[in-house]
Amino acid sequence: MTDTSRAIEVTRVRGGVRDTRRDHAATEEPMEVRIHGKPFAVIMRTPGRDHDLAAGFLLSEQIVRGSDEISLIRHCTDPETPDLKNVVDVTLQGELPAERIRERRQVVTSSSCGLCGRLTLDSLHAEVPPIDAAWQVAGESILEWPRRLRAAQAAFDRTGGMHAAGLFDAAEELLEVAEDVGRHNAVDKVVGRMLLRERLPLSSCGLAVSGRASFEIVQKALLAGIPVVAAVSAPTTLAIELAEESGITLLGFVRDGGYNIYTHSQRVI
Amino acid sequence: MTDTSRAIEVTRVRGGVRDTRRDHAATEEPMEVRIHGKPFAVIMRTPGRDHDLAAGFLLSEQIVRGSDEISLIRHCTDPETPDLKNVVDVTLQGELPAERIRERRQVVTSSSCGLCGRLTLDSLHAEVPPIDAAWQVAGESILEWPRRLRAAQAAFDRTGGMHAAGLFDAAEELLEVAEDVGRHNAVDKVVGRMLLRERLPLSSCGLAVSGRASFEIVQKALLAGIPVVAAVSAPTTLAIELAEESGITLLGFVRDGGYNIYTHSQRVI
Repeated sequence: MTDTSRAIEVTRVRGGVRDTRRDHAATEEPMEVRIHGKPFAVIMRTPGRDHDLAAGFLLSEQIVRGSDEISLIRHCTDPETPDLKNVVDVTLQGELPAERIRERRQVVTSSSCGLCGRLTLDSLHAEVPPIDAAWQVAGESILEWPRRLRAAQAAFDRTGGMHAAGLFDAAEELLEVAEDVGRHNAVDKVVGRMLLRERLPLSSCGLAVSGRASFEIVQKALLAGIPVVAAVSAPTTLAIELAEESGITLLGFVRDGGYNIYTHSQRVI
Repeated sequence: MTDTSRAIEVTRVRGGVRDTRRDHAATEEPMEVRIHGKPFAVIMRTPGRDHDLAAGFLLSEQIVRGSDEISLIRHCTDPETPDLKNVVDVTLQGELPAERIRERRQVVTSSSCGLCGRLTLDSLHAEVPPIDAAWQVAGESILEWPRRLRAAQAAFDRTGGMHAAGLFDAAEELLEVAEDVGRHNAVDKVVGRMLLRERLPLSSCGLAVSGRASFEIVQKALLAGIPVVAAVSAPTTLAIELAEESGITLLGFVRDGGYNIYTHSQRVI
């Protein structure tokens, strides 16, 4: 076990048989990038090589053009900052990078996690109460979700490159489905449709996603009041933590006749 | 063919034999979300159900809590706006959403695409010249990249849920590799390391990514001067367009002994 993954406990279900075992999940933590001590961005990332990430991110964001415009990258040492290992401060060199920051329209860009840095989980808790929906769903139904989702994916058939999200009720009915190149967008489209139909909170359905379950996916479920999230692929550590604290049942690796339950397994019958 | 995918021409290579055929790629276009006419966010998305996406996005961003706080969502009709179908304007209801926007720290959040809306491809061209590197690489080498990348993925073995990016030279050497829960972060870490080592532009190497190739991935390659990008999975339409216009050789579906070349195939020998 290193910083890039963490030991977790998982309820593994195969052929209807449950057992609990130790497994590992990919570590996900927010990293705040500061420029000259001022917050610039929050990136959800796997810890490690944070300085490389900060440098590459600032190149991608077109704040710097080369290494000569970076004079120092270091982890924050401000004693008032609560989570030092997740805050990186960059000192830039010359007038050009500063000008580029000023010129920049401060818009919140794609796949946003809805966080604003620092103790993100705590700040979220303050605003949204955990989900206590008593809703339950049969494990055999959940096993069908990925197949049903895949069958509804017209664009995937043509392109081989689309994510999907779907909402299922206990009778296995697909209430809503959306495809998008972005995992987060597919969930936003499904939840947004239900929001506009005044159907929130979605306390009697489950959300199936075609890819992995990261923090943002669980957060979107929480904000929509969805008690069960099932991902075809792996969850991250932060997704598991948020699901645990938010009362959400999180399943991963829902495929090949089995699945793992990471949190609140009582909803899966 | 619908808005969600578009016909493209692709050079398909299987068992060393090339042929050109028509295929489809997942549509990716930037959508600007405005609130009361003012830019709020740019989301890279597949067109369609834009109002659902805007509603779900504003819920995720915790600007609205329910449908009663949204009074109108419509596509922009401002005659001065150049790309109306990609601009959605939201009118909010009541004082609370406006307060939440004011309270928000305007930081650029994760997986940022480095865009600031509107004619994004055009604005990028103005700043970065296309790559004209004469570098070439053997198709047989590229076929090895995913295997070599996978072999270097220690954290994937433990978790089953990590993306990876790697830089290869013409002798098939893996110069740099990184793993991360985020596809973009893995590329930023690899490019950032090389930036800090003063190795940019990376005009004599290729970038391999474990997932799909979206606009951002190609943009990161462009900013680092990388002439060849190879993805294990599918590219989006915007990734193909940007690669075409930027002089980048873009390959997709590099797996099972074959690959597709979408742009500038002369670099693959």
